[in-house]
Amino acid sequence: MNGSSYDIYVLRIGHRPFRDKRVTTHVALVARAFGAKGIFIDFKDNAVASSIRRVCKLWGGEFKVEFVEDPYAFAKNWKLNKGEIIHLTMYGLNLPSVIEVLKSSPKDKLVIIGSEKVPSKYYKISDWNIAIGNQPHSEVAALAILLYELKDKWIYTGIFKDAMMKIIPCRKGKKIVRLN
Amino acid sequence: MNGSSYDIYVLRIGHRPFRDKRVTTHVALVARAFGAKGIFIDFKDNAVASSIRRVCKLWGGEFKVEFVEDPYAFAKNWKLNKGEIIHLTMYGLNLPSVIEVLKSSPKDKLVIIGSEKVPSKYYKISDWNIAIGNQPHSEVAALAILLYELKDKWIYTGIFKDAMMKIIPCRKGKKIVRLN
Repeated sequence: MNGSSYDIYVLRIGHRPFRDKRVTTHVALVARAFGAKGIFIDFKDNAVASSIRRVCKLWGGEFKVEFVEDPYAFAKNWKLNKGEIIHLTMYGLNLPSVIEVLKSSPKDKLVIIGSEKVPSKYYKISDWNIAIGNQPHSEVAALAILLYELKDKWIYTGIFKDAMMKIIPCRKGKKIVRLN
Repeated sequence: MNGSSYDIYVLRIGHRPFRDKRVTTHVALVARAFGAKGIFIDFKDNAVASSIRRVCKLWGGEFKVEFVEDPYAFAKNWKLNKGEIIHLTMYGLNLPSVIEVLKSSPKDKLVIIGSEKVPSKYYKISDWNIAIGNQPHSEVAALAILLYELKDKWIYTGIFKDAMMKIIPCRKGKKIVRLN
């Protein structure tokens, strides 16, 4: 891991089980793989939780998955007691113009990721509304680029704690080593 | 746009309309927003095509969306007549170890993005099997990071040709200008 002094968590809002199962799972796995500590999801979806927990069991690490009933109260409490809030949105300030300020702040960060439409109160409560370009694309991609930049373009090539599997990178084919 | 001399296209394989509609749409929108020229999808899915075309109509640009019946024959033909192939997979070589070689090659690039399981013939036909870290995460994120690096960390903050809308980036709220 790199040496940043703050922890990063993700708050996924507007999760609709029927429509968003796979995208929310991708958001969570990106959060884990790019160094966030956990995800909070605003709608209980056991299928999503068990997908993520299965990945953590096989590939290691202590990534937190929790459901929150009132995501706005959760965000408010985060801001009062924990740290700052970054909301990823195509309407926000572009990442290159703010990344150095974000990186230099020692506060823990909550990254809010919406699905289709995010209520305006989240724009207001966030310290930063940040765009990864002002074009429509994907919350999965936006989170990946944000974390990649916050973590100094760190790509994790090692294994997580208590991993049961390890990949040996190769140019053609697949090489997996079972660790226990 | 940056001044790279090659064009990039995406080939999405293993698309299952029921399961992958949203993820494939995210893959396509990331391809567009991060500077690829188009996407080829191996299964005809009009809902995906119309989502992407709607975005292109509103937000501009000439992004190609096509369906291909035989994606392996398509990839083979690409390699013979067009350029090189990069397959994104968690089993591949990590991006930092190959990015400079990829960037310095002037050949057009086809980026293959699979869903769950990719047949081994695609690992073999690809010039490069590349991982964005050897952890499971998301093909949407992997594509975003690859394109971001290939395009020298370019985040497109302008508008595309013939766009009907433009965002004025702001720290709180939304500002959209209608262009025609």
